[in-house]
Amino acid sequence: MTAAAGPTDLQTLGATDALDRLSALVADDLLAVNDTILRHMDSPVRLIPQLASYIVASGGKRLRPMLTLASARLCGHAESRHIGLAAAVELLHTATLLHDDVVDESGLRRGKASANDVFGNQASVLVGDFLFARAFQLMVDDGSLDVLRILSEASAVIVEGEVLQLAAINDAETSEDTYLKIIRSKTAALFAAACRIGAVVADRDETDQDALGEFGTELGVAFQLVDDVLDYSALQARLGKTVGDDFQDGKFTLPVVLAYARGDETERKFWRRTLVDQQTGDGDLDQAIALMDRHDTLAETVARAQAAGAKAKASLDRFPDGIIRQTLLDTVDFCIGRDF
Amino acid sequence: MTAAAGPTDLQTLGATDALDRLSALVADDLLAVNDTILRHMDSPVRLIPQLASYIVASGGKRLRPMLTLASARLCGHAESRHIGLAAAVELLHTATLLHDDVVDESGLRRGKASANDVFGNQASVLVGDFLFARAFQLMVDDGSLDVLRILSEASAVIVEGEVLQLAAINDAETSEDTYLKIIRSKTAALFAAACRIGAVVADRDETDQDALGEFGTELGVAFQLVDDVLDYSALQARLGKTVGDDFQDGKFTLPVVLAYARGDETERKFWRRTLVDQQTGDGDLDQAIALMDRHDTLAETVARAQAAGAKAKASLDRFPDGIIRQTLLDTVDFCIGRDF
Repeated sequence: MTAAAGPTDLQTLGATDALDRLSALVADDLLAVNDTILRHMDSPVRLIPQLASYIVASGGKRLRPMLTLASARLCGHAESRHIGLAAAVELLHTATLLHDDVVDESGLRRGKASANDVFGNQASVLVGDFLFARAFQLMVDDGSLDVLRILSEASAVIVEGEVLQLAAINDAETSEDTYLKIIRSKTAALFAAACRIGAVVADRDETDQDALGEFGTELGVAFQLVDDVLDYSALQARLGKTVGDDFQDGKFTLPVVLAYARGDETERKFWRRTLVDQQTGDGDLDQAIALMDRHDTLAETVARAQAAGAKAKASLDRFPDGIIRQTLLDTVDFCIGRDF
Repeated sequence: MTAAAGPTDLQTLGATDALDRLSALVADDLLAVNDTILRHMDSPVRLIPQLASYIVASGGKRLRPMLTLASARLCGHAESRHIGLAAAVELLHTATLLHDDVVDESGLRRGKASANDVFGNQASVLVGDFLFARAFQLMVDDGSLDVLRILSEASAVIVEGEVLQLAAINDAETSEDTYLKIIRSKTAALFAAACRIGAVVADRDETDQDALGEFGTELGVAFQLVDDVLDYSALQARLGKTVGDDFQDGKFTLPVVLAYARGDETERKFWRRTLVDQQTGDGDLDQAIALMDRHDTLAETVARAQAAGAKAKASLDRFPDGIIRQTLLDTVDFCIGRDF
């Protein structure tokens, strides 16, 4: 298989426009969320809205806030508390993106120059802090201590995942377990919190909250697994994204962890030179992809994503059938089949 | 006068040991606060407690949490809610220190290598985020939405001050007004919040909350003004601190803002070369101090600190006389007269 085959094969499932349908389903709410985000990015200190709007406007999918909106509606929430909380979720996410780009020393985000590249690392750190504070102000305005508990806990867990990832960079001994711990923390924790608070605002009991939390966790795991596959996919290039960022950063993501485990000593030497010592040259990225293909690890990572996706879907069994549940189920397939 | 004369003169007021007396006054509470801080820095991700304990153990004065403790006691709070909140205040402060050092590209903090120098900027950014999240978890455990509102608002304002400061670096046109806005935000906002929440946990009304908030604001302004004077003081060197950090960073603090405003064209040229273009050489720091002495701006900055201190003290008028109030009053003098 080629690097891109896994995800593109899945496009035949016809799930590719699920995100558009999700957007359409919560369209009015989403407009209100965007408005709330813009109002809370504002500050008399002009650099703050300048930098914040640069990243907020840079084409994020708003997947996490849409999950909050849809989860709340799935639970029958008929008021508008979920708007502010969905905005808080997106502000938290944006804050972590700003800090991630500083930590990863990224030059690109969603196909354009990253905020730290344009405004500097210093401003990115501070504006990330600002958005983090604003997210908490939004939660305080809502007034639910349960929501505040869920999102403050998630914020701590996200960082734990990122620090774990930082510690695992250039570490050839990174295990599957460690990798899964990293993505459950850095990515799935916010997906889980975004969904769970939808149940909280609708006053649902712990069982329903747990079910939506589980949905978010497994969807987040699937999402990140596919992200890590896409980093080696030629499709990335079509969308202005760099291919092989993780490779250049020395990150042992699952496709590499598996390839390293299954490789012979020559192959391991290659991985250690390129990812541990970060001595890379022309052709190394192609060779990395060839090795992953040899051990079928990109396809296997997609298969893991599908397994997580299946768990995510199963956790929605307890909720009534209907357009909201169906769109969330399709969103799972979309996240696995996406080629963006 | 020499650069250091302002603060050292004030030592004759006999206020130098007020901080020790404040520590003694809240000693048991402070032990509990330290214990709470240590427990909340903990994480299975080892780099987090390693880095956090490096900065927490690096000799901070715990001034802000002590203000929360003393304010709560001054308001007659007889329970222990103020412990967790004082810990939250210190965690917020520590988070901002970690991020400040990244933003300032500092190599030293409290006389030893700064955390970013030892652990790297990336880890400092992430662990700062972690402590920020933990601070909010502590507030959520306490359960007061008023406290959460005060501290999330303060967190946003602190960042506004820091971004404003970042934008004002190398800017010879920095006005006194802008400078005061910066320090009211970046420093005084947390002092104010630390004191105000003492009144909140004691269930005091808005008037008492405002009075303690005002105390914190003016104390914070005085504290920062003296800090900016001390940056040009030879006394700093005795304590392992670098002299002239602000000068090297191109910061237009009040002593410089005033000297620039009062200087002739030759002097302004000097400030623009050293602080705007950051072309500095041997003897420039001495020359900077000489120019500030010529226009008496270090002494004038100390005088401003004294005026803010007087306002801080006056705001405690409405509280009953006694050892707590007296120690807080002495703490004001100490912050102005300190030579550390």
